[in-house]
Amino acid sequence: MNKDSTIGINAVPGGALAPAGFLAGAAVCGVRNSGRKDLGLLYAEYPCVSAGVYTRNAFRGAPVEVTRAAVEAGGVRAVVANSGNANAATGERGVEDARRMQALAAEVLGVESREVAVASTGVIGERLPMEKVEAGIPAASAGLGQEGAGFAEAILTTDTVKKEAAVEVEVGGKKVTVGGTAKGSGMIHPNMGTMLAFVTTDAAVERDCLSETLKNATDHSFNRVTVDGDTSPSDMALLLANGAAGNEPLALDSPDYPAFAEAVEHVARELAKKIARDGEGATKLVEAVVEGARNEASAATLAKAVVGSNLVKAAVFGEDANWGRVVTAMGYSGAAFDPANLELHFGPVKVFAGGEPVPHDAAEANATLAGDTVEITARLGEGEASATAWGCDLTYKYVEINGSYRT
Amino acid sequence: MNKDSTIGINAVPGGALAPAGFLAGAAVCGVRNSGRKDLGLLYAEYPCVSAGVYTRNAFRGAPVEVTRAAVEAGGVRAVVANSGNANAATGERGVEDARRMQALAAEVLGVESREVAVASTGVIGERLPMEKVEAGIPAASAGLGQEGAGFAEAILTTDTVKKEAAVEVEVGGKKVTVGGTAKGSGMIHPNMGTMLAFVTTDAAVERDCLSETLKNATDHSFNRVTVDGDTSPSDMALLLANGAAGNEPLALDSPDYPAFAEAVEHVARELAKKIARDGEGATKLVEAVVEGARNEASAATLAKAVVGSNLVKAAVFGEDANWGRVVTAMGYSGAAFDPANLELHFGPVKVFAGGEPVPHDAAEANATLAGDTVEITARLGEGEASATAWGCDLTYKYVEINGSYRT
Repeated sequence: MNKDSTIGINAVPGGALAPAGFLAGAAVCGVRNSGRKDLGLLYAEYPCVSAGVYTRNAFRGAPVEVTRAAVEAGGVRAVVANSGNANAATGERGVEDARRMQALAAEVLGVESREVAVASTGVIGERLPMEKVEAGIPAASAGLGQEGAGFAEAILTTDTVKKEAAVEVEVGGKKVTVGGTAKGSGMIHPNMGTMLAFVTTDAAVERDCLSETLKNATDHSFNRVTVDGDTSPSDMALLLANGAAGNEPLALDSPDYPAFAEAVEHVARELAKKIARDGEGATKLVEAVVEGARNEASAATLAKAVVGSNLVKAAVFGEDANWGRVVTAMGYSGAAFDPANLELHFGPVKVFAGGEPVPHDAAEANATLAGDTVEITARLGEGEASATAWGCDLTYKYVEINGSYRT
Repeated sequence: MNKDSTIGINAVPGGALAPAGFLAGAAVCGVRNSGRKDLGLLYAEYPCVSAGVYTRNAFRGAPVEVTRAAVEAGGVRAVVANSGNANAATGERGVEDARRMQALAAEVLGVESREVAVASTGVIGERLPMEKVEAGIPAASAGLGQEGAGFAEAILTTDTVKKEAAVEVEVGGKKVTVGGTAKGSGMIHPNMGTMLAFVTTDAAVERDCLSETLKNATDHSFNRVTVDGDTSPSDMALLLANGAAGNEPLALDSPDYPAFAEAVEHVARELAKKIARDGEGATKLVEAVVEGARNEASAATLAKAVVGSNLVKAAVFGEDANWGRVVTAMGYSGAAFDPANLELHFGPVKVFAGGEPVPHDAAEANATLAGDTVEITARLGEGEASATAWGCDLTYKYVEINGSYRT
């Protein structure tokens, strides 16, 4: 589903606040000890239909449990999020703290607790400093508005840039907007890394349809990103639909559903790529494309193995088109394919085909790694399925960041 | 099987040449362009029973295929190995080159081609410079002797130290020696990294018994090591038994078989730990012990996830007892366990129990990471099974080595 142009999807500014009827605010509450905004509120002016996907880590942060229960109970229309502390591996006390965050946010926003999602990222295994959070929630609420850019900042941890995307698309004769903001830089791996994504839309959407839309979009975006292979206990992606666009509620069989689904996937994919590009210490976005596979699952496994390989990542950092590491990663991925049919390209330079190296100018191949976006394409010649995965290079800075994160 | 002392296993010097009847030699043939020894021969003076285990990467280097065929054909009694070029992803020409290496070594040693194993490690995807190899084989043969320390050097690539271990044990009233030498530093991961291990013994052993012994020993040693999660196309471990000790050939049901098996496992484990400690750029050996598991497979999965986590590895480098990353790695490992029963220790310091942090002195916990060996122990409280896995820290030097390997 890369044919955005044929559907008529237009990029617009504004991130998660681009759709009508969403407000946000943020505050410096001091959980991060950085003087930076670290507590944010996102709020829909109308009741929402909502959907969520969550980390598959056996350790789930308390906020993930609390949010999952809220989404299951019905329509989440607000998010309270903090950075600096993940409130994960914190036991029963952690769950109590997450519920308290939820209740306080509900109170200042004038909604029910079960309408509020809670998200926390940062250090694992330390209790949330609740007095700071308790002061931060009303402060963030006081600044609630349509600008609300502070929200996209407040959820960041080791991220260096805020991550936003939004598009417009026509659905049922109405202009519908889908927007989103995300965070994620380290502990990022398919099946949700330490990442949060909040996607909003003013479309009216039926609940089952919304869940399916988010699940599919996540499979093609956030679950195709890896920074370091570590899957966090705190991940979640939420999709809130407030219906302000006034369209007939979308179902899976609505004629314009594909356009809406593609809009959501587009936003999710843009956010995912921004996460990979801003991977801890990263200097380059790596895009691995696997084509000609028997099925999408094996294409995705192969693409993720390539962007997940430390050796590939280090070679990209060194701008060394060491394609042997790419075929090696594909070889241990576990996906079945015949190496004899493989064609491998760095950018436009073919380096391997028919089971052996293709003579090429090494300098030309290395030059394909010189920019800030690197494309590695593998053609399997076995079928019609394809998949893309995104990652980043492995750098000195990654080691520095993670060798001294808590100190 | 850690009770070496009760079986009466004694460490001895000499590595793979410690058992009676093994010789080795090495030469500078110039594949590596480093002026270092890069071609080695290992040779048993008597016919051998042999066993091998090989990489599971879908791309297998030509030498792996040639060696596997030799081991399957019968008794391999010699090894020809080069470093600097893996002869992998080199197509049919690569297989011809590996066979030519095998034939040349057989000729200078006066044995059959099918008695010679071939092993190559180094850059993937480039043809072996055969004229250098052809000159190196007779040169290595000329120096064949019981010293032969050059062999352990000649197989190294980015390794910084040679890796040898040997033990003596009594079997059937005879003193039996088991020795070995290995290489491996980067592209190291369970299911065989880019590692070679050549284990020798003067014990007489039946063929099926020898295969089973090597397989079990590998499962508890080389398959429990990770440096960077990349499984190489070139791995192999071989076990050659020349019978010079004069014992009755060992079978799986021989009374002294457990002592022999433990001796082999001991040597394999020592080599595996040396590989992990000498991981590319490593400053520390990390030993993850999982106890109280329902079964050994899940204990091993959990232990390998801990030593495999980039974030754990970076934290160890930074001497930061960031146990949240350890529980996170266990959580995404895929092995089933109940976090509520988990007890986690850094050295002697308990940091997590009953689903939440255990108050402790952070400086004391960090101090457990200050030495060159770091022990992390997880007690699951669910059964009697245990497993240990070995890895190393992730450092600036790893990035440097792998960002500029070919240049």
